[in-house]
Amino acid sequence: VSICATNTINPIRRIVDTLNIPDTSNNDKKLIPLSIGDPTTFGNLKPLQVLLDRIATLVLDQRVHGYQNSTGIPSAKLAIAKQQSARVNRTVTAEDVIITSGCSGALEIAIRAMASAGENILVPAPGFSIYQTIALSNGIEVKFYPLLPERQWEVDIEAMNALVDSKTRAIIVNNPSNPCGSVYSAEHLKKIADAAFDHKLPIIADEIYGNLVFSGHEFHSLAKITSRVPIVHVGGIAKEFLVPGFRVGWIVSHDVPEGALVEVRKGMVNLSQVIIGATSLVQAALPCILTPESETDRIAVETFHSETRSTLEKNGLFLVRRLMTIPGIAVTQPQGAMYILIGTGSMNDKDFSQRLLDEELVFVLPGSCFGIENYVRLVFCAPQTILEDACNRIESFCRRHFK
Amino acid sequence: VSICATNTINPIRRIVDTLNIPDTSNNDKKLIPLSIGDPTTFGNLKPLQVLLDRIATLVLDQRVHGYQNSTGIPSAKLAIAKQQSARVNRTVTAEDVIITSGCSGALEIAIRAMASAGENILVPAPGFSIYQTIALSNGIEVKFYPLLPERQWEVDIEAMNALVDSKTRAIIVNNPSNPCGSVYSAEHLKKIADAAFDHKLPIIADEIYGNLVFSGHEFHSLAKITSRVPIVHVGGIAKEFLVPGFRVGWIVSHDVPEGALVEVRKGMVNLSQVIIGATSLVQAALPCILTPESETDRIAVETFHSETRSTLEKNGLFLVRRLMTIPGIAVTQPQGAMYILIGTGSMNDKDFSQRLLDEELVFVLPGSCFGIENYVRLVFCAPQTILEDACNRIESFCRRHFK
Repeated sequence: VSICATNTINPIRRIVDTLNIPDTSNNDKKLIPLSIGDPTTFGNLKPLQVLLDRIATLVLDQRVHGYQNSTGIPSAKLAIAKQQSARVNRTVTAEDVIITSGCSGALEIAIRAMASAGENILVPAPGFSIYQTIALSNGIEVKFYPLLPERQWEVDIEAMNALVDSKTRAIIVNNPSNPCGSVYSAEHLKKIADAAFDHKLPIIADEIYGNLVFSGHEFHSLAKITSRVPIVHVGGIAKEFLVPGFRVGWIVSHDVPEGALVEVRKGMVNLSQVIIGATSLVQAALPCILTPESETDRIAVETFHSETRSTLEKNGLFLVRRLMTIPGIAVTQPQGAMYILIGTGSMNDKDFSQRLLDEELVFVLPGSCFGIENYVRLVFCAPQTILEDACNRIESFCRRHFK
Repeated sequence: VSICATNTINPIRRIVDTLNIPDTSNNDKKLIPLSIGDPTTFGNLKPLQVLLDRIATLVLDQRVHGYQNSTGIPSAKLAIAKQQSARVNRTVTAEDVIITSGCSGALEIAIRAMASAGENILVPAPGFSIYQTIALSNGIEVKFYPLLPERQWEVDIEAMNALVDSKTRAIIVNNPSNPCGSVYSAEHLKKIADAAFDHKLPIIADEIYGNLVFSGHEFHSLAKITSRVPIVHVGGIAKEFLVPGFRVGWIVSHDVPEGALVEVRKGMVNLSQVIIGATSLVQAALPCILTPESETDRIAVETFHSETRSTLEKNGLFLVRRLMTIPGIAVTQPQGAMYILIGTGSMNDKDFSQRLLDEELVFVLPGSCFGIENYVRLVFCAPQTILEDACNRIESFCRRHFK
């Protein structure tokens, strides 16, 4: 077996595999899985019908069943460019876009293009584990910059600065954040961009949750905040359109006038030619959901987004209000995405997850999966009745264990 | 830019990009593209309606829109295992299967799991360029073993033996072959397997064209031929089902009793967790086309396969008969797949391709794209009227250039 395969470690899998999932077959109580960031788990969040209808038409139409350009179908690239242009207030062209096998595929291409074995990238802690998995798979080192729970999970800029060395090649910024549920202000993003500028480092902006932001908060794409730092934006339809199984994501490059990304862009095109991953059926449907032409479709898309956001926001608020009354745990307020981190106080996160699973059949992921101990992550996509049941069980659990 | 991205070279792209594609907008003569191995180019080869209907149903059904297991949807893995069991006459289980982002994704995972940077793999010349692209991308060396045109592109076993060194980790065998259109006999495959056994090397069997074999020839999966050599089979639906844009392929591991692949299999599972590539929509449709349950579907699938094979066979035969009458070029007989290699005699392959394109607007790929000079590759998926037109143009071309 190769070194690469041996080093390809998914921390979530590694930790989850050590957890003991109880057998519930003889139990009246059902398992409540608040563990996986999959909005389709409970069936309450419905995908956009316009998207499904379009794919069904494309399947039967037989016009996109052949090989596509390795960087993506031109009309789909154009739609992504238009959407991104609107989000960043500057012109993005189809040439700036590469369509990939999900957002993970986008991250894999971006990271592999920007850093070589022996070099390093900066990633957030707590943060999504795929950054580390991809880096280690390619012999790239990861250095974790801390996010501050007492400041709504903002970046500890000084600590980040201290990590940069001569082998640092990029900073990954995830906003809105998995697992924190945080949404950064324009001011904070400006500070991150300034730090990257000072170090002459590009930013990989993982903005897959970009549209999932709650009232009182606004999503700012990093490429809107700065034009003097090279930004490689990665995104996709998995979360915003509630279809993680479809596996279509993208890279959008925002270079600086000096052309710092010229070679990286060529490198990313090279890498896009290896597996040509995203299925043509979903790619070809992107224009109708990202840049709908008919008024009906436009309204359908807007309504869909606002309903999704509203459901998630209500769920998040409900969870916070309910959990705040429970002794022993510390609740942080979600501002977007579909996650909330809860401090587990005197119990460590792995024990908390395992015992909560054993005793109350509520499945939450230990923060260790995301590089932070003494927190657990809850996904709040479930219907409120289920979330309420989960909260009641967590309360029973905490009342037993925390005095 | 990283070393990896710089070294990720697609030889087809690199060579094709140096060709000058003539502007045909003011020309009555149309370009005939016999260059890309895409059966959907001309619209004459229709995909299987059962497959399309099933995907359309799955899209609207909303039951498979969420994240799937990184190695694939269980029912789809089972269908692949059943089909493979029948082809190799031994029991294959769903545990032996990993579903991937196309057959390229399967090759990427298999090659990355079996060889580390600085080690090497043996690949055929002429052969499909993706093996080299994936290897170089990961710092793995490729050593080319020659195929013999005078023996219907069989492997030069002695030359292959001579290439093996202490850093060789696997042999890639492609049967039926792209670009040769050859189909190996059981006897020849036995010789290849024996050589691998002697060197204690596993084989990556690229059998993506497995079902596309013409009368008088029989496809033997390598895992049927030998049970004493570890075989990692890769395949997919792109060619057999005429849907290359859908991007669903697979790996099937056939280990030896000693368990030579135990660690490689774990490594491949690790690698499958990085991008979780194949779209759920197509994965979930695999059972109905690989192991159809209803008699109607079973007949539809069989009829589809036999019609596809028959069309390709007729096209291949037509091309051979017609091209054999043309002076200056040497025709080799296709036995399967959708390709034919033609010796370009006194003209080198790149000149032949470029001039044929300039003068006659027939686009064929130079053999250099596949590691062989003085041959060009023709794809014979086009309708016969178009193939006839192409042959007439090739004849004019040859009569001018070869005396």
